[in-house]
Amino acid sequence: MEAFRQAVVNTLERRLFYIPSFKIYRGVAGLYDYGPPGCAVKSNVLAFWRQHFVLEENMLEVDCPCVTPEVVLKASGHVDKFTDLMVKDEKTGTCYRADHLLKDFCKEKLEKDPKITEEKAAEFKHVIAVLDEFSAEELGSKIKEYGITAPDTKNPLSAPYPFNLMFQTSIGPSGVSPGYMRPETAQGIFVNFKDLYYYNGNKLPFAAAQIGQAFRNEVPNPSLISPRQGLLRVREFTLAEIEHFVDPEDKSHPKFSEVANLEFLMFPRQDQVSGQSARIIRLGEAVSGGIVNNETLGYFIGRVYLFLTYLGIDKERLRFRQHLANEMAHYAADCWDAEIECSYGWIECVGIADRSAYDLRAHTDKSGVPLVAAEKFAEPIEVEKLVITPVKKELGLAFKGNQKMVVEALEAMGEKEAMEMKATLESKGEVEFQVCTLGKDVTIKKNMVTISKEKKKEHQRVFTPSVIEPSFGIGRIIYCLYEHSFYTRPSKGGDEQLNVFRFPPLVAPIKCTVFPLVQNQQYEEVAKRIAKSLTAAGISYKIDITGTSIGKRYARTDELGVPLAITVDSTTSVTLRERDSKQQIRVSIEEVASVVKEVTDGLNTWNDVLWKYPTHSSAASED
Amino acid sequence: MEAFRQAVVNTLERRLFYIPSFKIYRGVAGLYDYGPPGCAVKSNVLAFWRQHFVLEENMLEVDCPCVTPEVVLKASGHVDKFTDLMVKDEKTGTCYRADHLLKDFCKEKLEKDPKITEEKAAEFKHVIAVLDEFSAEELGSKIKEYGITAPDTKNPLSAPYPFNLMFQTSIGPSGVSPGYMRPETAQGIFVNFKDLYYYNGNKLPFAAAQIGQAFRNEVPNPSLISPRQGLLRVREFTLAEIEHFVDPEDKSHPKFSEVANLEFLMFPRQDQVSGQSARIIRLGEAVSGGIVNNETLGYFIGRVYLFLTYLGIDKERLRFRQHLANEMAHYAADCWDAEIECSYGWIECVGIADRSAYDLRAHTDKSGVPLVAAEKFAEPIEVEKLVITPVKKELGLAFKGNQKMVVEALEAMGEKEAMEMKATLESKGEVEFQVCTLGKDVTIKKNMVTISKEKKKEHQRVFTPSVIEPSFGIGRIIYCLYEHSFYTRPSKGGDEQLNVFRFPPLVAPIKCTVFPLVQNQQYEEVAKRIAKSLTAAGISYKIDITGTSIGKRYARTDELGVPLAITVDSTTSVTLRERDSKQQIRVSIEEVASVVKEVTDGLNTWNDVLWKYPTHSSAASED
Repeated sequence: MEAFRQAVVNTLERRLFYIPSFKIYRGVAGLYDYGPPGCAVKSNVLAFWRQHFVLEENMLEVDCPCVTPEVVLKASGHVDKFTDLMVKDEKTGTCYRADHLLKDFCKEKLEKDPKITEEKAAEFKHVIAVLDEFSAEELGSKIKEYGITAPDTKNPLSAPYPFNLMFQTSIGPSGVSPGYMRPETAQGIFVNFKDLYYYNGNKLPFAAAQIGQAFRNEVPNPSLISPRQGLLRVREFTLAEIEHFVDPEDKSHPKFSEVANLEFLMFPRQDQVSGQSARIIRLGEAVSGGIVNNETLGYFIGRVYLFLTYLGIDKERLRFRQHLANEMAHYAADCWDAEIECSYGWIECVGIADRSAYDLRAHTDKSGVPLVAAEKFAEPIEVEKLVITPVKKELGLAFKGNQKMVVEALEAMGEKEAMEMKATLESKGEVEFQVCTLGKDVTIKKNMVTISKEKKKEHQRVFTPSVIEPSFGIGRIIYCLYEHSFYTRPSKGGDEQLNVFRFPPLVAPIKCTVFPLVQNQQYEEVAKRIAKSLTAAGISYKIDITGTSIGKRYARTDELGVPLAITVDSTTSVTLRERDSKQQIRVSIEEVASVVKEVTDGLNTWNDVLWKYPTHSSAASED
Repeated sequence: MEAFRQAVVNTLERRLFYIPSFKIYRGVAGLYDYGPPGCAVKSNVLAFWRQHFVLEENMLEVDCPCVTPEVVLKASGHVDKFTDLMVKDEKTGTCYRADHLLKDFCKEKLEKDPKITEEKAAEFKHVIAVLDEFSAEELGSKIKEYGITAPDTKNPLSAPYPFNLMFQTSIGPSGVSPGYMRPETAQGIFVNFKDLYYYNGNKLPFAAAQIGQAFRNEVPNPSLISPRQGLLRVREFTLAEIEHFVDPEDKSHPKFSEVANLEFLMFPRQDQVSGQSARIIRLGEAVSGGIVNNETLGYFIGRVYLFLTYLGIDKERLRFRQHLANEMAHYAADCWDAEIECSYGWIECVGIADRSAYDLRAHTDKSGVPLVAAEKFAEPIEVEKLVITPVKKELGLAFKGNQKMVVEALEAMGEKEAMEMKATLESKGEVEFQVCTLGKDVTIKKNMVTISKEKKKEHQRVFTPSVIEPSFGIGRIIYCLYEHSFYTRPSKGGDEQLNVFRFPPLVAPIKCTVFPLVQNQQYEEVAKRIAKSLTAAGISYKIDITGTSIGKRYARTDELGVPLAITVDSTTSVTLRERDSKQQIRVSIEEVASVVKEVTDGLNTWNDVLWKYPTHSSAASED
């Protein structure tokens, strides 16, 4: 596993899929560049995401800034709650995640201490299991109890304190407007709900989408046991998020039938709790059986499955795992993660959550702008409504400066409480009434408030929509894709192992390479003509005119995952070779760009074109 | 002009091309969202940029983080020099750009004070002209002299002080690693030069490219005279930058002939200084006549011209203006801005600069990693080289602890100084030698150093490449494109003016709308069938099934710049209407998606398809 990962990562770094950012300055932990092939793969993945989700579902794509004022992230809860608990080396000031240190300590004891008692082992296992729910105090006391010190220096550690994971900055020159680099793209959509709903003709459901950078000032994991997860845990990354707004009373989806028959690995909450493994379930059954909360959530699970497998993710190393009750926010109706298995284990790559009305309500409360939808009734409906009318003049006389608090408390009464007050006022003329904001009871008299039930005609139902949010960590998907696409095979001489990425054409960074078989001007002219026709057809290619053997040049292009290679070995026709099968056909110079286009655009498969053209097995093949 | 701009901006905001960011929280000056049509336009512009530059020129595209450590921006000069001079309202703390206040004061005096003397008028004009070169002290003394106060409160102002325009942040939890949000994307490419050069087979020239967000903590212009330039001067924006690395001794370009015959408005330095206007020049002449410094710079000017005009920028409102000597950095060899005329005047949208070796040298110096290229000679060349060999043993005996400084000083001698020392040592046996790092002279004896000239064979020439940098402000290009694409025309009744964006299909946010002529189930079924075929063909569309008149629906779609509209008015064929000509043809339901694709992909023009299908002028047309 470790060796496999090293082979993949070495290839990725050597061929510049990734470059550690600011490498000549010794880099910054958690920041990576996408070099040329990596950048092309990323563009391809994002273009396909737009095609598969935005275009297919007619989503409203928006593009909001990364710099975000504090008030927005106050409303969303990020300013107060988006924190990790840290401890500091009391002498050097180096910071560590408290939970990581405790987990590593327990793991190490379990794995490496042969003298540990059964009782102690059980305790360490328990700590690891409940670690995520520890408070700062609990973490601190465990760290003290176990005598855990700073891993690098063995110095004592501070008590755990919360560290906000957002990059903070300041907007404008006066220094009085704090801002943050957004930790997710979703908030930009929520604050625009009203405009987007209007743009959609005031109709539900609809989805908005956004692709963009997000920032988390993660602390690199210093653990010696668990691997660094270098390319998975980064400080800046591309998110692609969808916010699908839906009537909470109708979460059906008109296109659910298109995905209902998909079958794939699912891992429901129940199965996790009872210790079973993930199993293949038909999506239609998962929804009808109540395992997945609703059709819309199920529809997106299906679409995510299709998206990932089209990209080349191995379906046997892909599962949809339902969040356990304690993993889910209290407001969420249901939540599933698309997890992909790679050398680091099962990695969360897409989260698909029904977040109910939480986000829109939070911004409604904070901004005072109602982020709601309305359903017009075909005919007005008669409803009985509670009407509480405080008589402000009387209340003012009685309560002076406290009047406002009393009025608010009266208006906030629920139906039961109000009707009881009404009865008491009618029978006794006055009532004791608790005003929480004053911290005491006041006496309300009959002339201070009127309470009644009135019949009203309502023309519409006004409600806060639920939101179903599929959120894609693009960088993680791409990394897993690299592992799933990588394989080695012996060179023709058998003396080396050659690396290959079996990217589908959709993903491949370059669709085609062009090699003149030998260095001569005629062949180079032909190569240039072909290059021109490839550019005209919109196909990305690379010309390799080095004098290296054709076998070596094939190996070089296989290692970049280029699906097709054109070898110029005559002035009228060329050899076209497919990467994985190494099969070769002969195609005329005039036709070759269009054949490459057919295959890389997915209009034809390699097998489709294979029988149309003469196959080829000349001396030019491989080494 | 003002009214025209208002009409454009109102349309853009009403149809959600732009949304002021975080609007429900009263927004943040200088931050805008792209709403759905704006986001689609931006995607289209970027996709075309990739096609036109990256793919066409086989550029190496990279993708680097926005978060950048201080050391990188120290090397580039941004930490020290990327500043505006600000003054503060001494009571409220509100900040203003010092140069803006001074400029506004002078302008207002000139425009609105009838009693101004000729002498004073000349002075104000002079101040405006040389403003950009004022130091903090000069600005401060002028502000004092004129008695300029804070525009909002009339309070006194502080002395001017530099304010760095970068958003600052902190990387990691310890707070000791300052970082910034990058103010441009170029630095990410420069620091990767070595890897990219290697990736390109250690060959020059090659170009790297990057598209990404950049951040500048601009101060909104509070001026009452000059307009806010709201959508042009923003705090976060998308840049697309190319760094073309080239041998400073050979800046020819193999494809220059492809653009040499282009003719367009150019505004050379000479003509600006002598008070002439921009004039049409053939690009080939501009290069051969020495107006443009070199072929590669000229090639990119030509490619930028093609890029902008393909997008729909009016070539009569596009000019290439050469920087004046005082606008250009000292190291730059030549610099041209593509300026587009809009209601705000001529706006710099693309900068095309030959920055010589400045950036690579700066990072070489700061990082200690040589960012250089090498040219292998066909045959080794014999060169004479100075060789200074300090005899460390003797020097150690003579200077003890100071030996290292003496050795370094000896090795650092230039050719002239060394040959003089050699002569003196040979004639007198010793020489006085100044060691700056010791702050004194020492006596060097004959046995302490050998100095000679040796003939050496050199196999290659090592040099720092020049970089030619076309840098595109994508948001500014898009805004100008909106102005150039906007027009109004009377409705059929003549009672209203209707808005139209004449976007080419390449740019249009949606390629096609689908309307059932009347609300009935049959037509809606057909509309859905067509929608499906459009999705399969990868064409973005919008269905409008509202009961509004067909004329109103056309007006709505014209205002989004949708080039084609499909009206479903039978169950076998449909009406296809072109936006600008309002011409209509009848096409069968099976064919319509492919006809739309031909036209929007640019394989055929509307005129090409017009004669192939029966034209249509039924009652359904317009209102």
